[in-house]
Amino acid sequence: MYTYTTRIKLHETDAAGRLFFAELLKIAHDAYESFLLDHGFPLRDLDTRYEFSLPIVHAEADYLGELCASDKIQVIIHLNKIGASSYILNYDFQKESGEPVGKVRTVHVVVNLASGKKMPVPDRLKEMLQTLS
Amino acid sequence: MYTYTTRIKLHETDAAGRLFFAELLKIAHDAYESFLLDHGFPLRDLDTRYEFSLPIVHAEADYLGELCASDKIQVIIHLNKIGASSYILNYDFQKESGEPVGKVRTVHVVVNLASGKKMPVPDRLKEMLQTLS
Amino acid sequence: MYTYTTRIKLHETDAAGRLFFAELLKIAHDAYESFLLDHGFPLRDLDTRYEFSLPIVHAEADYLGELCASDKIQVIIHLNKIGASSYILNYDFQKESGEPVGKVRTVHVVVNLASGKKMPVPDRLKEMLQTLS
Amino acid sequence: MYTYTTRIKLHETDAAGRLFFAELLKIAHDAYESFLLDHGFPLRDLDTRYEFSLPIVHAEADYLGELCASDKIQVIIHLNKIGASSYILNYDFQKESGEPVGKVRTVHVVVNLASGKKMPVPDRLKEMLQTLS
Repeated sequence: MYTYTTRIKLHETDAAGRLFFAELLKIAHDAYESFLLDHGFPLRDLDTRYEFSLPIVHAEADYLGELCASDKIQVIIHLNKIGASSYILNYDFQKESGEPVGKVRTVHVVVNLASGKKMPVPDRLKEMLQTLS
Repeated sequence: MYTYTTRIKLHETDAAGRLFFAELLKIAHDAYESFLLDHGFPLRDLDTRYEFSLPIVHAEADYLGELCASDKIQVIIHLNKIGASSYILNYDFQKESGEPVGKVRTVHVVVNLASGKKMPVPDRLKEMLQTLS
Repeated sequence: MYTYTTRIKLHETDAAGRLFFAELLKIAHDAYESFLLDHGFPLRDLDTRYEFSLPIVHAEADYLGELCASDKIQVIIHLNKIGASSYILNYDFQKESGEPVGKVRTVHVVVNLASGKKMPVPDRLKEMLQTLS
Repeated sequence: MYTYTTRIKLHETDAAGRLFFAELLKIAHDAYESFLLDHGFPLRDLDTRYEFSLPIVHAEADYLGELCASDKIQVIIHLNKIGASSYILNYDFQKESGEPVGKVRTVHVVVNLASGKKMPVPDRLKEMLQTLS
């Protein structure tokens, strides 16, 4: 697993006073980018340094509690599954107190940039993802 | 059903050149706001004019095709289900050509503002939602 | 001049109940993209179909009134100035009532993609911009 | 002065491959929120715990260099000026290397919540702002 710590920003809230629902998925992706970066795999290099892209084909979120501006949160990433040419990540959101406030799941496929077709999950990526289990 | 038409904005794309995944959920909500507004039910008045709020407790998205800046899209909202104190909406995204590019689903609950507890879907809201079936 | 009409979205507001200040600049850019598109000049093609890019080197905004979710607004784009290798656009924001609520100004330079250096404003772009004066 | 460190997120970039211009103002505000929070002054409490609000009436940004996803940046906040009922903050953006990449300026006014009118900058706020000079 991998833990990402951040705070809710004012611009992530809306006039109802709490986090706008779609922002939870943005923050999950921020955590994912941080995980990749910490493993020497910056997303910005994907299209130029590697032969594949990793598009998200499905995402979902459950909202378990309220989040307000300035709230400190932890996002814990777990590997749910590695498939033939895909992987699934789970993200658990909790407040500093440990109170669970949300869950996100993202399903990624590995696509060969040249052919545009699915390809097996590369070994290097597989090893990295397995640190999350 | 209800149809909302919009264009993909540059700021909704990312450095991979296509719509950032979480933006699909934002645009689904834009369509929902437009639907409510067209029925004389602006979200901005929810907390002041009505005795309930309508938080989203679950959301999910499937990505079926690529969307780029300037692409014109239609979002078609269907009622999936009205429950005792909740309702589920489906959003189908398609390009001008009719090509399907994504699906979103949002699950809303009706919460009494005074008690903070779930309450039955109010009749006026139920009638409005039934125009989507 | 060019007029762009839109509504304030819930996700553009924050917990203070009004438009988050930086969103005014996003909406100004939405209006600019709409203007370019209406003139057959989609931003998405800039890097592939043209030999130049048009980065913003300065932007500023004045906040004259409050904007809330669901508010209908007009953004009126005026050409402020065309320079040797730059142009300045002004955006006036007003409510449906005509009440002014904000101003934005963006300064763009024309950069040759091959050399990375400033270049004269191309004639086709100049003609398009002059429709804004 | 106050230093805020962060990374550019993928969703803050656009299809041109770099930070979308309006995001620089969002990040400036993130830094401002972090500064307030570090001084025991969370923005979320402004409307409930204090008798004033601090709306931004003007903001501007200069873009000096390119920022891409994963770039680590520092935002250094300086106090520009405290006026009778307003204050001006400057934000300098630099890469890890120290290379300057942008500047933001925000002008805030202090508004009495009860009357809706400008009021003198409260002493507690003044002291906090002076730590930035």
